[in-house]
Amino acid sequence: MKKILIIGIGAGNPDYVTVQAINALNQVDVFFVMDKGVAKEKLVALRKQIIERFISGDRYRIVEATSPERRRDDSDYKSTVDELNRDKQLIFERLIADEMSDGEVGAFLVWGDPSLYDSTIRIIEAIASGGRHAFDYEVIPGISSVQALAARHRIPLNLIGRSIEITNGRAIAEGFPNNVDSVVVMLDSQDAYRHLADEDLDIYWGAYVGTPDEILISGKLRDVMDDIERVRAEARRTHGWMMDTYLLCRRESE
Amino acid sequence: MKKILIIGIGAGNPDYVTVQAINALNQVDVFFVMDKGVAKEKLVALRKQIIERFISGDRYRIVEATSPERRRDDSDYKSTVDELNRDKQLIFERLIADEMSDGEVGAFLVWGDPSLYDSTIRIIEAIASGGRHAFDYEVIPGISSVQALAARHRIPLNLIGRSIEITNGRAIAEGFPNNVDSVVVMLDSQDAYRHLADEDLDIYWGAYVGTPDEILISGKLRDVMDDIERVRAEARRTHGWMMDTYLLCRRESE
Repeated sequence: MKKILIIGIGAGNPDYVTVQAINALNQVDVFFVMDKGVAKEKLVALRKQIIERFISGDRYRIVEATSPERRRDDSDYKSTVDELNRDKQLIFERLIADEMSDGEVGAFLVWGDPSLYDSTIRIIEAIASGGRHAFDYEVIPGISSVQALAARHRIPLNLIGRSIEITNGRAIAEGFPNNVDSVVVMLDSQDAYRHLADEDLDIYWGAYVGTPDEILISGKLRDVMDDIERVRAEARRTHGWMMDTYLLCRRESE
Repeated sequence: MKKILIIGIGAGNPDYVTVQAINALNQVDVFFVMDKGVAKEKLVALRKQIIERFISGDRYRIVEATSPERRRDDSDYKSTVDELNRDKQLIFERLIADEMSDGEVGAFLVWGDPSLYDSTIRIIEAIASGGRHAFDYEVIPGISSVQALAARHRIPLNLIGRSIEITNGRAIAEGFPNNVDSVVVMLDSQDAYRHLADEDLDIYWGAYVGTPDEILISGKLRDVMDDIERVRAEARRTHGWMMDTYLLCRRESE
């Protein structure tokens, strides 16, 4: 029997790695390292840094695979992700079939937490339930960029007794939901917060949170949104990639 | 200058502790340990276990304080929590003033993640901005019970490209929100999921997740809700306390 570990390695700071993840890393025979797009080099380097720092032996091997890219055209988001995941599934199946032997442990390292806006669990589940490959798998949680953002801003995500929504740029551009006071936005490449300038909101924004390049900006949305847009564009030019998250909170009546 | 660390120690499994938290624990001169209610003994023991396991020296001291209880009467939830937090603030202020010297590091260990349904950050912020005590403070994120639940069920929290809501039993009893497909419910002592039996939902429920007492139940809400209610009541009787969380997902059309 083969075993697959889906290991959350935290978002940003290598010190976000948990004891459980370190123990898991040390059981691994083969790491499957895949990344895509402009962030590829940086994120692959971070994974290797974590592997080297936290593994005591050197009996593991690393297999790199090129990740397919999501089609960016007029198709709707869901169907392009479905297609991407089918492509990834074929690659993952090949890796599991060809690159590991029975009794070995293979691992996918997931940036942040595997349960949040990441398809690795979904893909491995699809392969497992397909039944053509016999393996067991386990998920190890990691510190997400949402938690890193809150910790670095030293804020709670929720107001007392109230709900939080975690969403993406596409959805928040359509308006601030009326049933929550706190919304965390991930995967916003379009500065969607600008659509909410008329609402009475505070924003807590962070880029590269937990890394030496971290940038934090917070304040009344209307007052700081131009700053955020400018700093964001500059940082993207400087670093060649952008990884940011933000929390929007309705201001409590004063 | 005094320094306060608000350290997330993860929810359930002591192995959820991060490297950052371990480094923080080892800087601490005085741990402030407070808990309340039936879970008190168990949670205080877990904190002490983490302190003993992950701290190399023995130069730290532990100060226990009795946590005030939230008034459980007809007052609305928000105002009873506000009142509770004011009581806690007085206690925290006394601890910071009397139990630590200048240059020392004090710590509050928070179960799970400090940014999620926990008042420690809010209280420390209130004391800091009150200006009567000079101290710096820092927040260290931890694995939340939400992530532990998803990892142990081996599921993503969100559907592709869709939002997640994190809420409480009180709010979910009023109905499943119409703008999301995935809702995580924390702090539900009333089996509020029963109110949603007519919706086409899957439930992923977990109690004492990540601990040796862990119980996981999942399935179509209508099919498993009686099981969950029964198992939950039994476990509460057996252990004397209950700590559970669940995810409700709209079933994708088949």
